[in-house]
Amino acid sequence: MTDAVTPPHVTDAVTVPHVTDAVTVLPVTGVGEVRPGADLAQLLLDALGSDGLRDGDVLVVTSKVVSKAEGRLVHTDRTAALDAETARVVARRGPTTIVRTRHGLVMAGAGIDASNTAPGTVLLLPEDPDASARRLRATLLERTGCNVAVVVTDTAGRAWRHGQTDLAIGAAGLTVLHDHAGLHDPHGNLLVVTAPAVADEIAAAADLVKGKLARRPAAVLRGLSAWVLPAGAHGAGARVLVREEDQDMFGLGARDAVLAALGADPAARAGFGRAAPAADLLVHLAALGAPGVAAGTDVDVPLPELAPRELGRWEARVHAAVFALGWSVVPSHDPTTVLRLRPPTP
Amino acid sequence: MTDAVTPPHVTDAVTVPHVTDAVTVLPVTGVGEVRPGADLAQLLLDALGSDGLRDGDVLVVTSKVVSKAEGRLVHTDRTAALDAETARVVARRGPTTIVRTRHGLVMAGAGIDASNTAPGTVLLLPEDPDASARRLRATLLERTGCNVAVVVTDTAGRAWRHGQTDLAIGAAGLTVLHDHAGLHDPHGNLLVVTAPAVADEIAAAADLVKGKLARRPAAVLRGLSAWVLPAGAHGAGARVLVREEDQDMFGLGARDAVLAALGADPAARAGFGRAAPAADLLVHLAALGAPGVAAGTDVDVPLPELAPRELGRWEARVHAAVFALGWSVVPSHDPTTVLRLRPPTP
Repeated sequence: MTDAVTPPHVTDAVTVPHVTDAVTVLPVTGVGEVRPGADLAQLLLDALGSDGLRDGDVLVVTSKVVSKAEGRLVHTDRTAALDAETARVVARRGPTTIVRTRHGLVMAGAGIDASNTAPGTVLLLPEDPDASARRLRATLLERTGCNVAVVVTDTAGRAWRHGQTDLAIGAAGLTVLHDHAGLHDPHGNLLVVTAPAVADEIAAAADLVKGKLARRPAAVLRGLSAWVLPAGAHGAGARVLVREEDQDMFGLGARDAVLAALGADPAARAGFGRAAPAADLLVHLAALGAPGVAAGTDVDVPLPELAPRELGRWEARVHAAVFALGWSVVPSHDPTTVLRLRPPTP
Repeated sequence: MTDAVTPPHVTDAVTVPHVTDAVTVLPVTGVGEVRPGADLAQLLLDALGSDGLRDGDVLVVTSKVVSKAEGRLVHTDRTAALDAETARVVARRGPTTIVRTRHGLVMAGAGIDASNTAPGTVLLLPEDPDASARRLRATLLERTGCNVAVVVTDTAGRAWRHGQTDLAIGAAGLTVLHDHAGLHDPHGNLLVVTAPAVADEIAAAADLVKGKLARRPAAVLRGLSAWVLPAGAHGAGARVLVREEDQDMFGLGARDAVLAALGADPAARAGFGRAAPAADLLVHLAALGAPGVAAGTDVDVPLPELAPRELGRWEARVHAAVFALGWSVVPSHDPTTVLRLRPPTP
């Protein structure tokens, strides 16, 4: 999928990739139960042993232990927690609710974890996973002298694919997205849309050695120092990987989108992304039998001459399409002959 | 996201993960230009050197070189190729067209590659990437005696996230999905929805050492032999990772879903997934002011007493919702008083 708007550049003048050697993915074993207020950096260092970290390593930690250390284990039921963590419902089907969280993550159940927790308690995601990663990175530098990037991960399902992979939900000291924009391939074709989500690939690689059921909540990736930023530079964090709602085409499930548009549900408006340009609006409306004309920034659609019941059908369809395309119906000089449409004010 | 229907099980009786040691990701360097008809296995073995492969390794190859060796470089323009490779359009916005391919992959531009190819030519994905992986695996076993799993990858964008990651589009000799269904965590909670997409995580890890611009089209992952199937057993392949359309909630972009439902576009029907159960249909219709009653497998919605224009609006909204929910409007005994709805015949 292309990025309609290019994300923040991490441009690179070279045309060869950074990594030239092997990458080793090492599990971190022997981390005990993590309790609220625990010194997570120290628990990880103890488990890693004296030679555990080196300059340029990437330490990958599951959000679960970060959350536990940060006291995000709360006594509540899952439904109440889901409401509190949800920014917007994306899709609902049967027992499944997929939401966009406060962090911008799209996940079933808002990433709330009720497995591996005592009954009646749930574990919320870290309040600010990038900040958690920065704190951990700073502490590790202080205690070991090693410049180590930190990635905080969570497990998420994907549209279109079975199974889950781990994603980066927090990061510090890492180039999270390697934007090739502006580079050319050896044939001279511009590579406009290639931007490997390095932090997500690191999270996925780490999951190959971590253990959901064993107590191995972390991994070290060695050999990726070209992606590690200088000590003290934390970088933009994993937030950069979150697609802004207005650039996303899948902000609502297919069925949910239709029901939201028919109900003109204001809470779901953002799920349709940025408003369509007038030219696109006109094309789509024409396909529904509602050709219009641009009148400045507004678009005027003449009401067709139809019997009342037919006109009502026409109206309902046009209203739903207009809503989905991000436009609004506004009062016109003569509402008996024209439907006036207006894009959102930017 | 949960899997509404559990995919084929690869069940495991143990409650500890397979991997206990480090995983090494080795780039394969020195693979020259791959021409149509090339012996790809031999090119990779030559590049790997005499000690290049060991029993239990996973060899990850980008689909690009598989396609080249299989002669999938065709003289055509991108638009014609896109039409030919598309099973269904998923979303369109501006210059971007996201489609579901014949393989079930959802990708911008159907995974057709016009970068790194001469002008006027495009590179199509392998005809059957699982079969490509099986052939490569069999040849490697024959020539080296090593039991090596093979993963064929491609790069894809994601809903909700910036940047791309590599995915497994073909696999042989590998447990591609590790279904934990039926297992319990240490607190006794049932782990119903955790199924790491191992093959996708392997593809992502390999991308960390492969090079899109350099000529490093492959990587070897060492340390994952627990996921490698016995010699001769190819397994179900990466096809298992493709979510069936009827289980997918994101088969259409949000805006595209609305336009498809308003136009009752039969080509887009599969994008809405499996038909809603009658109970769900009734809930959604009631929210739109169209309460109905189940009449056997059909649902009868009494027409409200409204002025004709209002009735037309009501009708259009109900028709679009019914379409999105996978049901159809069928003739009733008295169409002036009742709208009769029928689920699809299974």
